[in-house]
Parts: sequence; C-alpha cells; structure tokens
Amino acid sequence: MKVLVINSGSSSIKYQLFNMPEEKVICSGLIERIGLSDGIVNYTSEVETIKETTEIPNHKVGLEKVVNLLLDEKIGVLTSTDEVAVVGHRVVHGGSSFTETTIITEEVKNKIKDLFSLAPQHNPANLEGVNVAEEIFKNAKQVAVFDTAFHQSIPAKAYTYAIPKKFLIEEQIRLYGFHGTSHKYVSEIANTYLGKGNTKVITIHLGNGCSITAVENGKSIDHSLGFGPVTGLVMGTRSGDIDHTLIFYLVNTLGYNVNDVNALLQKESGMFGLTGFSDLRDIEAAAAKGNIACQLALDINAYRVQKYIGSYVAAMNGVDAIVFTAGIGENSVLMREKICNNMDFFGIEISAEKNNVRAKELTEIHTEDAKVKVLVIPTNEELEIAKQAYNL
Amino acid sequence: MKVLVINSGSSSIKYQLFNMPEEKVICSGLIERIGLSDGIVNYTSEVETIKETTEIPNHKVGLEKVVNLLLDEKIGVLTSTDEVAVVGHRVVHGGSSFTETTIITEEVKNKIKDLFSLAPQHNPANLEGVNVAEEIFKNAKQVAVFDTAFHQSIPAKAYTYAIPKKFLIEEQIRLYGFHGTSHKYVSEIANTYLGKGNTKVITIHLGNGCSITAVENGKSIDHSLGFGPVTGLVMGTRSGDIDHTLIFYLVNTLGYNVNDVNALLQKESGMFGLTGFSDLRDIEAAAAKGNIACQLALDINAYRVQKYIGSYVAAMNGVDAIVFTAGIGENSVLMREKICNNMDFFGIEISAEKNNVRAKELTEIHTEDAKVKVLVIPTNEELEIAKQAYNL
Repeated sequence: MKVLVINSGSSSIKYQLFNMPEEKVICSGLIERIGLSDGIVNYTSEVETIKETTEIPNHKVGLEKVVNLLLDEKIGVLTSTDEVAVVGHRVVHGGSSFTETTIITEEVKNKIKDLFSLAPQHNPANLEGVNVAEEIFKNAKQVAVFDTAFHQSIPAKAYTYAIPKKFLIEEQIRLYGFHGTSHKYVSEIANTYLGKGNTKVITIHLGNGCSITAVENGKSIDHSLGFGPVTGLVMGTRSGDIDHTLIFYLVNTLGYNVNDVNALLQKESGMFGLTGFSDLRDIEAAAAKGNIACQLALDINAYRVQKYIGSYVAAMNGVDAIVFTAGIGENSVLMREKICNNMDFFGIEISAEKNNVRAKELTEIHTEDAKVKVLVIPTNEELEIAKQAYNL
Repeated sequence: MKVLVINSGSSSIKYQLFNMPEEKVICSGLIERIGLSDGIVNYTSEVETIKETTEIPNHKVGLEKVVNLLLDEKIGVLTSTDEVAVVGHRVVHGGSSFTETTIITEEVKNKIKDLFSLAPQHNPANLEGVNVAEEIFKNAKQVAVFDTAFHQSIPAKAYTYAIPKKFLIEEQIRLYGFHGTSHKYVSEIANTYLGKGNTKVITIHLGNGCSITAVENGKSIDHSLGFGPVTGLVMGTRSGDIDHTLIFYLVNTLGYNVNDVNALLQKESGMFGLTGFSDLRDIEAAAAKGNIACQLALDINAYRVQKYIGSYVAAMNGVDAIVFTAGIGENSVLMREKICNNMDFFGIEISAEKNNVRAKELTEIHTEDAKVKVLVIPTNEELEIAKQAYNL
C-alpha cells in the first residue's frame, strides 16, 4: 500500500512516498519558496534527482507539480493518483482534543482550525496541506498525525502551570509538548531494544529545536517544551528556560516592545544569542580554537540537558536508557560526551570510543558495565507518520 | 558584644538584638504599617511583650520608637545606643558587586543604589534602613548582608541565560538567586552534621517564598530563583517556572496588559492561583476533605521540588543530604512526605514516624539505612546576619 506523508509549512511542503508495511521509501522531496516566482521543487526517487525552479503561487500548485513528477512516464513512480491509499499529514498542534492519530473529517478540520491561536505558525499551513491533498488525492484516506498527541499522556501535575486555574479551564493554557512523533518513534525502538516490561527511557531530541521527554512504559509522562515550542533546552535560536521576569524588565525598565522581546527570545537567543553562530558545528569548531563564548555556550547547553535528565530520573524514580536523536543528537560526539560527563551517580557512563560515531542506526555508546543504556537512535518522523497512518 | 539586626521593608522593619558570640536574643520585634497613622510597634524581650499602635510617618520615627523601648528604664535592655557595636542589615540584592558580607561605606551605599532597578521593591527600603540606623546608632559599624551573596559562587554555565550575550554584559541580566542567608545558614549546619569533606547538600527553603539550592562543599552552585524572585518552585502566590510564551499569549491573543500579567504571576498565581487559598494549612485541610484542586496543587508543588532535587543531583553528580527549612519545610509533614515519596532511586527514603514532627531543631527524618540524610533544620536568617556581621 502506498502512503504519502506530507509536512506542510507556511512556505514549504516536505513529502515522502512509502510502500507500507515494507517501510520502503519510493520517493521524497521538498517544495520550497511557495508564494514566490522562484519557487523550487525537489524530487528524489531511486532513479532520478530533480531540482526545478518555477513559479509556485500557492500550496496547490506546488503539490500539483510534485504529482506531475510522480505520474511522469519516464521518471514517475505512479500511474494514477488513486494508487495513493493514505495521505499522512503532520499537524503540529492537536491541543487536548487529539490523543492519537486520527482520520481527517470536516469535524477534525474544524478542531484543527480552533487551535490556530495556539499554533499560529503551524496549524494554518498544516490545514492548507490537508485541503490541497484532499483535492488532488480524492480517493485517499487523509490522516492527521499530531506532534502533541504523544504527550497527551502527561499527567496533570506535570502539564499544569501554577497560574490561576481559570487559564487552564477557560483558555486551555497548559503544557502540550511537541516533537511527539520523534520521541514516540525513538522511544519505541529503545523499548524493543530493552526487551522488558516497565521501561524508563529518557529521549533527547537535539536538532534545530531541542526537547527531552520522560517515557515510562512507552508513555510520555513529562517533556521540556510546553505551551509553546520554546522552553526547556537551549536551542539554535530559541532561549529554552529563562526567568520570565527578564521579559518584564526588558519591557518596563529597558523600554523594549513586547513583540520584539518575543521575537528576540525565539529568533535571536539560544546558541546564536550566546555565540553569534547558529550552526552547532561552527560553535564546536570555534570552541576548539579557544573561543570562550562558544565554550560557555556548549557548557550551558550540556548542563541544561544534564539537569533535565536528573529531573526526569526523579519523575520516574529511575532510568533504564537514555536516547540521543535528531541532527545534533545523532552526530555531535562532543555534545553527547559533555552531557554524559560526570553522570555516573545515575549509572550513565559512555565509552569515548563507542561515542565516536555519526550514527545511522541504533548504536550503543555506554560502557560495558554501565547500569544505564545510552543509545543513539536516528529519528525518522516521516516513517513514523507513515506507520501510524498505515496502522490506522 | 551587642549586634542589632535590621530587615527593613517598604512599610516595615523587623529587628532583633543579639548578644554575640553567645547568639543570645536580647529582644526582637517588628515595626508595621510605616507611613500610616495607625502604625504598630511590636517589642518582645525576656521580661515584656509590647504592642503599641501609634503614628509612624517614616522609617526613622519607627526606629526611634524602638530605641525608646530599648532605652526605657523599666523594660529596656540598653543604657545607651552606643552599646550597639554592630548593626547588621539585610540587603536583598547585591548584584555581582557583593560576594560577601560588607562594611557599609558611602561607596557601598551607592552600589546598593545602583541596584535599585534590579530589586525595586527591596533595595530602596533596605537602604532606607541603613540611613536611619546610621543616624541613630552613630558609633556602630553598619554591615550589609546580601541575600544574593551566597549565590555568587554559582558558575557561569548555571547563571547565564541563553539570550543575546549583550544582556549579560551590558544589562547584568543573569541568575542572582535569593534567600541566600537562609540557604547558607542551614547548609552550614548540615555540613557540620555530615562531618566530612566534599559534601553535596540540597537545601529546600519552603516558606512564603520557596527556593532550592545545590550546595557543593559549602558553596552554592545552582539555585531555583533567578534574575527575580519568582522562578523555580511553586510559591504562595508566585508561579515559579512557567512557559514564558503564555505571557505573550495573554498579551497578544487575550488582550492583557503587560503589567497586569506581571502582577498576576507574582500575586495571584502559585498555590493561591491553583486553589483560591494562600495558606498551605488551608490547602492541606481542604485536600484531606477531597478538594481536587487542592490535591492537585499539592501534587504539582511536590513534583516540582522532586524534579529540582533530581536536577541538582545531576549538577553535583550525587547527594549526601537534603535539608528542609522555613515555615512549610519545618512544619508540613505532608509536603515533606510527598516530596520524598518515590525517590529511593536517589537513596532518599524517610521514616513516616520520624517525619511526623514540627521541627524546632535539627531533626533527622530519613530511615535508618537510607543512603541520603534527610534533615529538617529550622532556619534563622536574623542569627545568620548577626553571626556574619559579628565575624566581620
């Protein structure tokens, strides 16, 4: 069965076509610069890689161009759009309505719309992708996979902020969490690896966005991103945890505009704010050459992760495995080393030799007699979406 | 030697007169409602307790009224103000300038003034107390004991927020920490109790304000309050940690005024916001009768403390003792029980019987074979100020 996975952003659509349940990628690509005259369509199949610059006025035109490639006599992989049985859509915010992957109906679309105010940068674009796919793949089942769904198992003591309770009841202000598809995917692999009941796993997603999840018996029970995707770990340009009083200080004492402060904490903070570099590889290189700001930024970043590991060990009263994933988690030897350094009280000890890897598959990096398994597991959100859409 | 300790607030002065180094309290009291026609002077000595309602237009008049009582022929304890050799002042914010207790000079007063913007509710009142005490106790040494000083040993990786670095360099926006006098006082007692080198102690101050400190070898290395006194644990009316994006959501989507949000997070949040009660005893009583909001608030509160304990164990890669102090920490059997519940992975296990105490002195509450000592140690910030002022 052919399953198309779509991740529709405000000016881009990432897509991947799978043969399921074989989990085989038939083709994949990215439509970029939607809305501009110099849009780009990328397409990669087993036989061909294409990059075409063309006007892409809207999401529909973009997806139609991809369909033309899919159906192309020479380089195509389909004879009819009807071959696509399921389209799986990434939807960032499912609020408290969606605890699992869901077949998209008008009612579901309305609920996704109701959540626009909670995810103004993502849900409208996600819904646009749904609408366009419905028009093009008329006979396919449309399925929504929510970033927040995996975290709906988080208990009230962890998702409730200590603010007046009316904000939870009337305005749905609470921790939702994000990156759920990635945390679910790698935690399931870790659970299979552990091969036992009652598992306590901490999954650490370190990419452009960064987050960490406590996964007990396969369920998310706490997570570092919250109401929005900015708290917790230090990210590329997002601050992670701060003292929120600095917002009031910037506004009231230093005269900043509130929206400028919001933008500053999302786009000019994190590793970029501390160092001037946004790519971790540049920061690691500069730190190695003695750049003190870069060295400090790496220390801040790793220390924050260590503290979250400790807090999630407390949340679960133990830990069997910790998992590194996503771009930095899979590739940065240095960050993994700094995070696992001086953590032997918890039973976390890694081998420098085993850690010296850019992992393409599940890789153990703990020492032979370490109590806690330390794993690198490449994430694959598209495959996870395809699996969930197929299983449904 | 007689040491007077003064804690001067915006409309009150708390005072305590000690004989040092005997640590004997000669008298103590509180001047309330400064600035009002129905001000109150409280005075307690070994022989007399007095509560006098009178007009107290300003701090000077308030302190003069206390001096009249101190010198009173019948109930007084001094024959001359010159008997007071040292006046120890609590000063909330020492910024990065003051790492320890300091004799007050004009330069020191100017620095305290420079920090007004960082502690607008405290430092001006503290300085007013200094000025008044200088006029009245002309021959005494005036000494400042800073709430932030104990935390000046926190390393950069813990005190730096991941925001553009210019805010640290140019605006001194960083973690300062508070309640330092209390954390120092109880951690020193804990270290004496442990009687060994290389100690790892977590001190938990649970009162109206709440905070937690990782104390390694007698030095604060991390702490839950930050740039302002609102982050970290859930407090009476302060939120503790939140997702700061909710501030922008309240302002931009729900139309709140920024200053109202600030007030809301400081005065209407925390346990009060969650339950409608501000006194923990009321919350515990309601929870016992089945009030779900109160039960949840206690769970949120305890869970937050547990996570901080875990994170500080990570920060120190171990823990020898945890210490409960201040009103709730010393008296709430239930909160201590909830915090220590399901923490045996760390070696934290308490005895229900030993925990059933309102502690008036150092009390062990861990089980006999627990790896981590769990102690209740009553705090005494006034005595700590007197000790530091005397030692200087």
